[in-house]
Amino acid sequence: MDVSLDRLRDDIEANAAFGATGDTGRTNRTGSDANRDARDHLVERMEDAGLDVRVDAVGNIAGRWVPDAADADAAAVASGSHLDSVPNGGIFDGPLGVYGALEAVRALRESDADFARPVEVVSFTEEEGASFAPGLLGSSVATGERDLDTALAYEHEGRTLDAALSDIGYRGDGVLDASAWDAWVELHIEQGTRLESADADVGVVTDITGITHCEAVVEGQADHAGATPMDARTDALAAASEFVLDVEDAATDAASGDGTAVGTVGSLDVSPNATNVVPGRVELGVDIRDVSKETMDDLAAAARDSLDRLDAERGVETALSRPFDVPPAPMAERVRDAATDAADESELASLALHSGAAHDTMHVARVTDAGLLFAPSEGGFSHSPREWTDWSDCRDAVAVLAGTIERLAGR
Amino acid sequence: MDVSLDRLRDDIEANAAFGATGDTGRTNRTGSDANRDARDHLVERMEDAGLDVRVDAVGNIAGRWVPDAADADAAAVASGSHLDSVPNGGIFDGPLGVYGALEAVRALRESDADFARPVEVVSFTEEEGASFAPGLLGSSVATGERDLDTALAYEHEGRTLDAALSDIGYRGDGVLDASAWDAWVELHIEQGTRLESADADVGVVTDITGITHCEAVVEGQADHAGATPMDARTDALAAASEFVLDVEDAATDAASGDGTAVGTVGSLDVSPNATNVVPGRVELGVDIRDVSKETMDDLAAAARDSLDRLDAERGVETALSRPFDVPPAPMAERVRDAATDAADESELASLALHSGAAHDTMHVARVTDAGLLFAPSEGGFSHSPREWTDWSDCRDAVAVLAGTIERLAGR
Repeated sequence: MDVSLDRLRDDIEANAAFGATGDTGRTNRTGSDANRDARDHLVERMEDAGLDVRVDAVGNIAGRWVPDAADADAAAVASGSHLDSVPNGGIFDGPLGVYGALEAVRALRESDADFARPVEVVSFTEEEGASFAPGLLGSSVATGERDLDTALAYEHEGRTLDAALSDIGYRGDGVLDASAWDAWVELHIEQGTRLESADADVGVVTDITGITHCEAVVEGQADHAGATPMDARTDALAAASEFVLDVEDAATDAASGDGTAVGTVGSLDVSPNATNVVPGRVELGVDIRDVSKETMDDLAAAARDSLDRLDAERGVETALSRPFDVPPAPMAERVRDAATDAADESELASLALHSGAAHDTMHVARVTDAGLLFAPSEGGFSHSPREWTDWSDCRDAVAVLAGTIERLAGR
Repeated sequence: MDVSLDRLRDDIEANAAFGATGDTGRTNRTGSDANRDARDHLVERMEDAGLDVRVDAVGNIAGRWVPDAADADAAAVASGSHLDSVPNGGIFDGPLGVYGALEAVRALRESDADFARPVEVVSFTEEEGASFAPGLLGSSVATGERDLDTALAYEHEGRTLDAALSDIGYRGDGVLDASAWDAWVELHIEQGTRLESADADVGVVTDITGITHCEAVVEGQADHAGATPMDARTDALAAASEFVLDVEDAATDAASGDGTAVGTVGSLDVSPNATNVVPGRVELGVDIRDVSKETMDDLAAAARDSLDRLDAERGVETALSRPFDVPPAPMAERVRDAATDAADESELASLALHSGAAHDTMHVARVTDAGLLFAPSEGGFSHSPREWTDWSDCRDAVAVLAGTIERLAGR
């Protein structure tokens, strides 16, 4: 079986031109002209490869190949990723997995492999959440985690997703059913440096961490920065600063040794935020992730403990909510094994590692056996035009993807 | 000598109606219609009191009274404050000092006091800096600290101060010369609770603290909050949080005992400020004040030391600038003595205290003998409709102001 880097590169470079912001950057928002052009190109390339293309009600695109020897009624093996990007993002985040799956199918068709199952190449809508929050949208609908009507009602700049998809001709019918797939495998860039550090060719993900977002509020008393003595203040920012450091400490402790936990205060907004006013109120956004739900809960509890301490010691009033909470998603052992075997057969070095970033595979793993492969990211950059994966690394990762699909769909 | 609370209250309440935001709130921005109306009313009330009114090039208003017995060529004793307000500010901050001085002059005219010097009632332009930064504007020009052309070129919402004053008919000629005054005394609300706590009727300010504003920048590395392990981060917000606490610690130490120092991180802006991104850059605004320039310099040095430590310990890159630096302003002993004597004579309790808030008197004190009196602020509130001073407290404070002017201008 021979993966063609020329075909893969032509596809990724053609896709990169839609919404290009420079040689290696692009902005591809769901519902934009660039997004329509990218979708049109994908459909054309799927049809060129002989796939039967379907667009569902939330704009997910699936191209189906029923190998001659396969049972057309058997549950399919599916593979893919997404075409949308963050503003001024990179050219591989998403497209490598979509066109990698398409190239894998082309290579498999040309091989003498014997297939029992159909294979589907999938592009999910609005993975990034850059336009129609909260991200992983198409996969959430295809896995039944989110209601279709809810998804279609999301708005960006006054336009619903429903209208946005209709405007570009990708408001299809029905809903893709991921639970009907026998297995799923996604190829994505790592967005980190572990593969690079280990000099590995491909990452085989063991678990995708869960994600909790907490919103913390610290209420103090806004006061005149000159007229209010130090011992008469209830400074919300000073209290919030202790909280930031407590979150960092708790996550660092949890990650010590081989721990995979992370805890981040990523956003902090001060009111009234004037140099000469003692801060009266601070709102903070906390991101907690781990492969262990228990550790995530421990970190959320540590955040609550920190605020309780600040209530007592500094006289602030605090609140903590947890509006977003997705449990960790372990990958299916048979998909991981298929990927590791495929790498071994191709004499490529694979590395078992977890994913701290969310992917559509998080959702799919709730309804069928799922796996996630990583290609190396130079310097770990992503969501930026600095994002880069060597073309030879792309080819090697797609070879492993093709071998994985062959094992999952084969006889 | 009898101060009339009725006249004082009528004036302050009439002034409160210009830009009223409720019973006890007002928005009076320099160059607004409300500001024109407030100025028109003041000029009318000055003329009613027989004062000779002059408007200078930066919109400062001065009403001059030459008592019959006075030498018209002698250096005047001046008193006043400002009429502009912060958005939704209170009704006393500024107007109490302007209309208090006017009422003092009316009361002094009606008394049998014998005067050697003219008396001037002054309203400075744009004390608050709510529209044409950086505040204390009219007094900065009248004291030669700021060039007239520079001041007139400040812009708010695309309109220069020059145009704003012309639009409302208060772009006069020449510049008020505060250095020509024999003495200056301003009455202002305390904006704190020390008078209330001490059950004192009036505050006699010993020193106005100096003010330093520092701008700190902490540069880390923005990274994916999920994909970046705790030990691979350069989190600008975590570093900045240590800085906030270091500034608080250093100021608390400096203020221990009877210290007057304060240090505040009042503003903090995070980039990119998204819950799921490790913060890459933080900008902070620091306010440092004390009656001792040496202590202010020590606190600024402590801020620099903190950043140096963070550079070394966290690998961030930091910068600290000091774009605004006004030294402390001690009040003139003879003005303080006059005020204390006046309070004693009226059997009112005075309290010697420092001012942590800036006032036009800071500038005037650089060019002539100056004093500052405080009236009690209920609960210490200011820059808010909650700002309040009992009318009887207003009357008492104006009585002390009148007695002070009598002593300074008298024979």
